[in-house]
Amino acid sequence: MHVLGISGSLRKASWNSGLLRAAGELLPEGMSLEIVDLRDIPLYNQDHDGPNAPEAVIQLKQRIRAADALLIATPEYNGSMPGVLKNAIDWVSRPANDSPFSGKPLAIMGAGGISGTIRAQLALRQVAASINTFPLNRPQIQITRAWEKFDAEGNLTDEQSRQEIRAQLEALAAWTRRLRGE
Amino acid sequence: MHVLGISGSLRKASWNSGLLRAAGELLPEGMSLEIVDLRDIPLYNQDHDGPNAPEAVIQLKQRIRAADALLIATPEYNGSMPGVLKNAIDWVSRPANDSPFSGKPLAIMGAGGISGTIRAQLALRQVAASINTFPLNRPQIQITRAWEKFDAEGNLTDEQSRQEIRAQLEALAAWTRRLRGE
Amino acid sequence: MHVLGISGSLRKASWNSGLLRAAGELLPEGMSLEIVDLRDIPLYNQDHDGPNAPEAVIQLKQRIRAADALLIATPEYNGSMPGVLKNAIDWVSRPANDSPFSGKPLAIMGAGGISGTIRAQLALRQVAASINTFPLNRPQIQITRAWEKFDAEGNLTDEQSRQEIRAQLEALAAWTRRLRGE
Amino acid sequence: MHVLGISGSLRKASWNSGLLRAAGELLPEGMSLEIVDLRDIPLYNQDHDGPNAPEAVIQLKQRIRAADALLIATPEYNGSMPGVLKNAIDWVSRPANDSPFSGKPLAIMGAGGISGTIRAQLALRQVAASINTFPLNRPQIQITRAWEKFDAEGNLTDEQSRQEIRAQLEALAAWTRRLRGE
Repeated sequence: MHVLGISGSLRKASWNSGLLRAAGELLPEGMSLEIVDLRDIPLYNQDHDGPNAPEAVIQLKQRIRAADALLIATPEYNGSMPGVLKNAIDWVSRPANDSPFSGKPLAIMGAGGISGTIRAQLALRQVAASINTFPLNRPQIQITRAWEKFDAEGNLTDEQSRQEIRAQLEALAAWTRRLRGE
Repeated sequence: MHVLGISGSLRKASWNSGLLRAAGELLPEGMSLEIVDLRDIPLYNQDHDGPNAPEAVIQLKQRIRAADALLIATPEYNGSMPGVLKNAIDWVSRPANDSPFSGKPLAIMGAGGISGTIRAQLALRQVAASINTFPLNRPQIQITRAWEKFDAEGNLTDEQSRQEIRAQLEALAAWTRRLRGE
Repeated sequence: MHVLGISGSLRKASWNSGLLRAAGELLPEGMSLEIVDLRDIPLYNQDHDGPNAPEAVIQLKQRIRAADALLIATPEYNGSMPGVLKNAIDWVSRPANDSPFSGKPLAIMGAGGISGTIRAQLALRQVAASINTFPLNRPQIQITRAWEKFDAEGNLTDEQSRQEIRAQLEALAAWTRRLRGE
Repeated sequence: MHVLGISGSLRKASWNSGLLRAAGELLPEGMSLEIVDLRDIPLYNQDHDGPNAPEAVIQLKQRIRAADALLIATPEYNGSMPGVLKNAIDWVSRPANDSPFSGKPLAIMGAGGISGTIRAQLALRQVAASINTFPLNRPQIQITRAWEKFDAEGNLTDEQSRQEIRAQLEALAAWTRRLRGE
C-alpha cells in the first residue's frame, strides 16, 4: 500500500512536514510513504490547466494517481488551510473528468498552536468531499502547542503524538482496504 | 473613498475580474476603484514573510493599507475560494501585528455556475473574521449561470447583475462611513 | 437493505418531507425506506441524555441502529441546517460510546430556493464527520426553485429531480455495500 | 447599554450559562445584562411562525428587539452549535422582514474541552452573517479544559477567563457604540 504525503507548508523547519517525516518512521507493515513538496507548483490559472498544465503539476497528478491513499499535513493560516495547499488541489482537480483525487482514501493531520489546526482541517474536509476523496473520520490528529513537541528542525519529539500518528496510519490502511473491498 | 479590488482568478477572460471592471463603471460618486492582480505573488513561505517578503507582496500590502475598503471577487473552485486568493491573504496577514487587513471594511462578490460561488464566499467570510476585516452582510452578489451574463472577454453584459453591483457598492460606501464614525 | 429517512422540516407541506416520500416511490430493488418524524423529540438537555433520555429519543436511536443506511432531507434556514435536525442529532449521538450513528452510510438531499440548500448540506456534512457517519459524496441532490417542482401538498412533481433521487438511492445502495465489504 | 445574554445549553450546571453569569458580574459601567433561557422554545415549525408564533417565541423576539447588543454563549456539540440554539434562531429570524436580529451587534463566547468550542463558534458566525447581525471579531472567548475552570455548579472560577470576559464586554460596548455612530 503506497501513500503519498503532502505538506501544506513550505517552511524549512515546518512542523507539518515534520509530521510527515514522523509518519515515514512509523509505517505499518506493508505501507510505503512518499513525501512531495509543493514549492514548484505555480499559481493556478484556468487558462493553462488540463493537458497544458505546468510540468510540476503533471508530475504531482501522476504521483497522486499512483498512490493508494493520500496523507495531507496542513498548518492553519488565518483560520483555514494554506493557499499553497488549496492551490495545488485546484490544479490537480482539473479537468474534472481526469482528476486523480476521485475515489482516493485520505487522512488529514496538522500541528499548530492552541487549536491544533482544527479550522484548517474542517476547511480541507469540505474541499475533500468536493473533489470526491474519502477522508478518514478517526482518529483525528490535531497537535496543539506544537512548540513543545517538535525540535528546532521540525522533528517530532513527542511520544504521544507519535503514537497517534501510528494509530492514524493503521486506520488509514484499514480504511483503504475497506474501500477497495478487501 | 478609495476601494481596492482583488480578483481571485488569473484567467484572462475571468468572470470575476469582469465583475471588478463592471464595478469600476458603476462607482457611486466619491468612490474610486483600483484593481490589483495576484499573478506576481509567489507561494507563501513563512521563512520569508515580514520585512523580507517578496516585492510583490510588499506592494500589495501597501495598496491594501492605502485603501479605505476592499472588494474581493472570488470564483469557486472545489467548493471553496481559490488557493491563489488564500495564498495572497496568507502573505498580507503577516506579521499579525502589521496586517493591513485589520479593521478594513470588505465587500465580497462572485460569479460562477449553479450556486454562484456561495461556498467560496462562505469560506472567504470565515477567513475575513480571522484577519479582522469587517465584511458587508448585504447585499450579496452571487451571479449564477455566468455563461449567460458575460461576453467571451469576461465583460458583464447582464443589466440586473450590474444593478446588484451598484447596490453593493453603495452599501459598501455606507458601511465604510459607518465604521469610520461618519 | 433498510434505509431510515429523516426530514429536517416539520412543516405539513414540506418540500423536504416530499423528497423522502418521492424516494419511497423510487427505491431500487431490495431497498426499503422508513420515514421518521422529529416532532416528538424535545429540546436536548445533557442532564437527561443517555439511559434517561426521553422515550421519543430512545425510539429514534433504535430505528437508526436498525437501519443499514440513513437518508436525511434538510431544508436550509439561515444559511445552515435547521435547529430541529441538529437537536435530534445531539440527542442521538449521546453517549458517544453508544451512538448508533457511528459507521452508518449517509445520503443527504435538500430542496430550497436559489441555492438548493447548499449551505445546509455543508453544515450537515461537517457534523456528519464528527458523528462518524460516512456521507455519500455524489450525486448531490440540491433542488433549486422548489416552488416550481412540488405541488401544494409538498409532493415532488418534477421528473428530472425524481431521476436524480433514483440515482442517489442507487449510489447509496452501492456505497453501503462497499462499506460492508460486499 | 442593554445586552441580552443567550445560553445554548439547558444543562443545570452548564459552563456556558456560567459564562453569562460571570459576564453579569463583570459588566463595564453603563452596561446591563439580562439572561434568557431557551427551554420554553418549542421545535421550529414554519406552519406556525410569524404572528402565530408560540408565546415563548414572541417574548424572546421582544427581548432581542429591546436589546442594544447580543451575547451568545455556545457549547459545542458534534462539531457545531447546539440544535437548541439554532432552533431559537430559526424562530426569531422569521418572518425575514420582521427579524429583530437584523443590525444587532453580537459577541460570541464558549466553554468546552480541547478546542474551546471553536467549531461551534465558526458555525454560529456563519449563521450570524445570514441573519444580518454584526459579530465582534475580537477578542474571542474560547475556554478550553472547562472542567478546570468552573466549579460543580457551573460557576466560573478561573481568573484569567474572567479577565477575558471583561475585555470582550468592553470591546462589545465599543463595537455597539461604533455601529450606532457614537
